[in-house]
Amino acid sequence: MNAPSASFSVTLRVVLVDARQIGAVTATIAELGASVVALDVVEGHADEIVFDVTCNAVDEDHSARLRQAIEQTDGTRVRAVSDRTMLVHLGGLITVTPKVPLKTRDDLSMAYTPGVARVCEAIAADPAAARNLTIKRNSVAVVTDGSAVLGLGDLGAAAALPVMEGKAALFQRFGGVDAWPVCIDSHDVDEIVRTVELIAPSYGGINLEDIAAPRCFAIERRLRASLDIPVFHDDQHGTAIVVLAGLVNALRVVGKAFGEVRAVVLGVGAAGTAITRLLVAAGIGDVTAVDRQGILTPATPGLDDDRAWIAAHTNLARCTGSLTDALAGADVLVGVSGAGLVTAEHLASMGEDAIVFALANPDPEIDPVVARRHAAIVATGRSDQPNQINNVLVFPGFFRGLLRAGATAITQQMELAAARALAGIVGDGERAATYIVPSVFNPAVVPAVSGAVEAAARQDALSPSS
Amino acid sequence: MNAPSASFSVTLRVVLVDARQIGAVTATIAELGASVVALDVVEGHADEIVFDVTCNAVDEDHSARLRQAIEQTDGTRVRAVSDRTMLVHLGGLITVTPKVPLKTRDDLSMAYTPGVARVCEAIAADPAAARNLTIKRNSVAVVTDGSAVLGLGDLGAAAALPVMEGKAALFQRFGGVDAWPVCIDSHDVDEIVRTVELIAPSYGGINLEDIAAPRCFAIERRLRASLDIPVFHDDQHGTAIVVLAGLVNALRVVGKAFGEVRAVVLGVGAAGTAITRLLVAAGIGDVTAVDRQGILTPATPGLDDDRAWIAAHTNLARCTGSLTDALAGADVLVGVSGAGLVTAEHLASMGEDAIVFALANPDPEIDPVVARRHAAIVATGRSDQPNQINNVLVFPGFFRGLLRAGATAITQQMELAAARALAGIVGDGERAATYIVPSVFNPAVVPAVSGAVEAAARQDALSPSS
Repeated sequence: MNAPSASFSVTLRVVLVDARQIGAVTATIAELGASVVALDVVEGHADEIVFDVTCNAVDEDHSARLRQAIEQTDGTRVRAVSDRTMLVHLGGLITVTPKVPLKTRDDLSMAYTPGVARVCEAIAADPAAARNLTIKRNSVAVVTDGSAVLGLGDLGAAAALPVMEGKAALFQRFGGVDAWPVCIDSHDVDEIVRTVELIAPSYGGINLEDIAAPRCFAIERRLRASLDIPVFHDDQHGTAIVVLAGLVNALRVVGKAFGEVRAVVLGVGAAGTAITRLLVAAGIGDVTAVDRQGILTPATPGLDDDRAWIAAHTNLARCTGSLTDALAGADVLVGVSGAGLVTAEHLASMGEDAIVFALANPDPEIDPVVARRHAAIVATGRSDQPNQINNVLVFPGFFRGLLRAGATAITQQMELAAARALAGIVGDGERAATYIVPSVFNPAVVPAVSGAVEAAARQDALSPSS
Repeated sequence: MNAPSASFSVTLRVVLVDARQIGAVTATIAELGASVVALDVVEGHADEIVFDVTCNAVDEDHSARLRQAIEQTDGTRVRAVSDRTMLVHLGGLITVTPKVPLKTRDDLSMAYTPGVARVCEAIAADPAAARNLTIKRNSVAVVTDGSAVLGLGDLGAAAALPVMEGKAALFQRFGGVDAWPVCIDSHDVDEIVRTVELIAPSYGGINLEDIAAPRCFAIERRLRASLDIPVFHDDQHGTAIVVLAGLVNALRVVGKAFGEVRAVVLGVGAAGTAITRLLVAAGIGDVTAVDRQGILTPATPGLDDDRAWIAAHTNLARCTGSLTDALAGADVLVGVSGAGLVTAEHLASMGEDAIVFALANPDPEIDPVVARRHAAIVATGRSDQPNQINNVLVFPGFFRGLLRAGATAITQQMELAAARALAGIVGDGERAATYIVPSVFNPAVVPAVSGAVEAAARQDALSPSS
């Protein structure tokens, strides 16, 4: 199912005894299913010529086969293969730069000593001044323990850093937010919570990222209780908000009322829990939550607090059984579980005009091509398919809005407002089975999400009990 | 002693019924001892005109007197007074920006998912790759607990942030280093150490800053033992390196041999301890360390480990007594204590061509104007006097060198090399009683210091036992 992509772009440095052989090289590459992106001559000699051949491959094995095939072509050899993604990450993705000139002695005396002393004293006298006079006004910590890095699992804090850097880069690119990676070298809840509490003074918000369930729930809950800045676990709430936005539009496309549909949420981890809670809060007809043991009910043994809440507030008919039982007649399936857990037969048993979000990463619960045969609308987490459920649609604008409002906490009102604003970007005339969420490059996304969150935050500040 | 300066620059928004009155306003400002920096017309009306009058004042009280005097001038009123230093710090001093383009889907797929997964896996397979593929290659945490902010004392973590931001801005401006503030909301040594250990994966070095003694010694010692990245308490070692560089040049000016002079170090806190150790390591004739109780000797009661080391390695003649006893006949005084602790009589009792570094901040141990009557060479921490002993001369280049070498620790060899390199920038033909250290804006400083540190680090790596 995987196609060649820029995310696996390699540059082969190929030495040819005759420049005309480059045709044979590109033909070989095409035959093997890769696509040539660029040809650059890097050296010309009397007896040989050196090309950099950049092409999109599928994976490491594919790249190795390309090299091998080119080397077997007469009169050619491959001097080196470099991976463009690795080159992009060389030295890291982000940099810290001064926002003020530091050219003269006067500049230094205001930005640093002796002038800075007065700024420190102003904050010591009035701690709230930190939101005006420091980076706290616009900064977010991207916090991880590296225990659930993308779909890769527990790689540890150091290996999670490239993802946190990427996230920080996106925060600035899309939201104008100064985000900084905080990779915590511990899997102990107490240590993680305490570390974030202790470094919080520099930040206006905390974005938790790639922390395994159920640890992520406890960490978020405790930090929300102890800190006076908003704490947002993106894998939970960011995902839930995009899912809700996409579902609102998908239901409009098939002409079903949100309050009357029944959705099945497959997978009750970080994302599944948050999605279920948000769908319930948004007033969906009913949800059936399914995990490895089957349908969640209040009678399911060993429920922790989060699952107990879900069991109490979903599955109003108190059905029991397996995923097969849950899906029969359902309107919506939201999968946040694992590759291949859903079959064509499952989808065939769903109600008319079924909506299927198969969000397992990198490989969905069911091949979207197969899914489209049985469902009216299919969404995935993949960028090479229509309807990508992508958190980048939410977190930059969400934090932009929080910071602008000086929010001290996150409420479900903000999440619902963000989802509605995101859904609203796809207009009545545009909405379609393959267009239920806007592109991450749509310039309307961040203003809409941030505006909705800021307004909700200011509303919350007026009526703190809500 | 304080003069009007840019570090206390205020802008008065003055409303005049007649534009010609501006002459009376500037005359009033000059009479009160402030200096006008800029005049800008911001509004013109039929019956009045509005000027922004920017001037350098001495302090808050001075600024209030300026406002009052202008308001008492006929036909003028002051609409607002704004403090330029506060305006410089509005929203913080630093920003985080992407180093890679994020314009297309291909850019995203390499910087973030799905391509980034491969970078994470490469680091998980080989942790050393983090120094190539992440910000660890060039990043430094500027860590404080806010317990000794400048000369202001224990203002706490939040109020220390402007200093850490200023430091981070200088790190980039002078050293090309990506530094980020880590303000730890605790004064507990165990908590501070553990927090830095846990967040270390993102960083290539740790700069400790404005942490009170003796806590700072324990924190540095423990972090150096547990981390595989260099840990540098700037208030100790940065200061010591600049002092040594200045002293080397000062002794050249007065024609005394480094190995034959006796120096008195007044104040045995963070800076005093590091200065004493480095002077001893550099081979100075002898040091007499003096604190509130007088001259340190092995018999001094209640010595902790650091002071015991100093007592054992200084004061070779085992003298006892007060500062007065220590200074009699001494060649050098390095004061890192408090304002006004040294008298003219003290200096008069020193040896011929005395060298006096009066580094207490913001007010020196003795007025440098008075000191110059009795000493051949006087240095202070102030920017409005010749010979400013300024840590900015060291930390950007020092960390630049450490990061370039991929250093895992800091050695005394590096510190000595940095001091010699810094001293060497002031050439044989230039050195003078008022020119013993280069300007922070001298472009030769960072290359010299970083080159020396990098070379020493590579040498250490070759012979790790040194």
